[in-house]
Amino acid sequence: MSQFPASLQRLIREFSALPSVGEKSATRLAYYLVAQNQQLALSLAQSLKDAVDRVRLCTRCFFLSEEELCPLCRNSARDGSTICVVEKPMDVIAIERVGEFRGVYHVLHGLLAPRRGIGIDDIRVKELLARIDEGGVGEIILALGATVEGDATSYHLASLLSQRGIKATRLAQGMPKGGELEYTDEVTLSRAFSGRSIIGK
Amino acid sequence: MSQFPASLQRLIREFSALPSVGEKSATRLAYYLVAQNQQLALSLAQSLKDAVDRVRLCTRCFFLSEEELCPLCRNSARDGSTICVVEKPMDVIAIERVGEFRGVYHVLHGLLAPRRGIGIDDIRVKELLARIDEGGVGEIILALGATVEGDATSYHLASLLSQRGIKATRLAQGMPKGGELEYTDEVTLSRAFSGRSIIGK
Repeated sequence: MSQFPASLQRLIREFSALPSVGEKSATRLAYYLVAQNQQLALSLAQSLKDAVDRVRLCTRCFFLSEEELCPLCRNSARDGSTICVVEKPMDVIAIERVGEFRGVYHVLHGLLAPRRGIGIDDIRVKELLARIDEGGVGEIILALGATVEGDATSYHLASLLSQRGIKATRLAQGMPKGGELEYTDEVTLSRAFSGRSIIGK
Repeated sequence: MSQFPASLQRLIREFSALPSVGEKSATRLAYYLVAQNQQLALSLAQSLKDAVDRVRLCTRCFFLSEEELCPLCRNSARDGSTICVVEKPMDVIAIERVGEFRGVYHVLHGLLAPRRGIGIDDIRVKELLARIDEGGVGEIILALGATVEGDATSYHLASLLSQRGIKATRLAQGMPKGGELEYTDEVTLSRAFSGRSIIGK
């Protein structure tokens, strides 16, 4: 690689610093942009700068936004009485892709993880409680991952919410689509059993 | 995705335009840069601009360079009488990684492909012949891919070179490292047979 021009080497190093981009992919990307598609290289440079300049957090739900309030919070057709609590902005995108939820969101920007020193004040819980204290909230859906930290955060939030008399629900845990019993791990299977529902009468 | 700020969406679209980056990876990369590592985003933007501004082709061998001549052509310790002909700049990197070749290069920037309308004047053949006509060249190593187009280009160049009385060689074709006969394709096996060499006396 040391035969490459210095500016190209720096570009390769920076691409390698991206998540799940190895040195070979980084070399291929940098080479493509510099040697084969300089127009894309320049517009990518501009887009990176613009996005960093413009994107901030919605002051109400903490999703990404270019304005004070994000499009979801500004949309008066959404049901503000149901708040779906998620860990990170990408989770909002995943739920919106399904297209069924019509309420609003609250992005925590993390999960409780005492062992990594992440406590209640390190994620956006205070701001969630403030939204609830403003009134008009009927249900909080805790849509956090089915992980140890996701579960711990859900239980903690549920207890804070029940002190305020707010109904909290969480996503069902069970068999994923296409899951075969033979290959399903014990935890998932156990959760699928305890969450079973009646299908006949 | 349409819930993301416009500037972030544009960034995702541009990342998706890179080779072998799908929409999901593009979203992850753009999101990481804008939401989690803005410093890398800004330095990547600058590096893209710098590399496009600075990188051009070496006027002698057509490898990438920031100066008139690339470091390989400027290096007086390299043997200028042996020119290794490759298809593209990345091939130079691959050969340099092996670290055994001590000559210089000539990058064709393509292979002959009559069916795609790529003829002798579309790749840097004229410039190769001009280098040879300057004198002092003893051997041309044709290090082109073992593909139909690589073979065709090698044969064509070899004939041009023999008219000039220049010795042309090409890379050996045969079993790759770790290759098992059972799983080797017929073409490779046939080439390995015809290129067999004596190991006993």
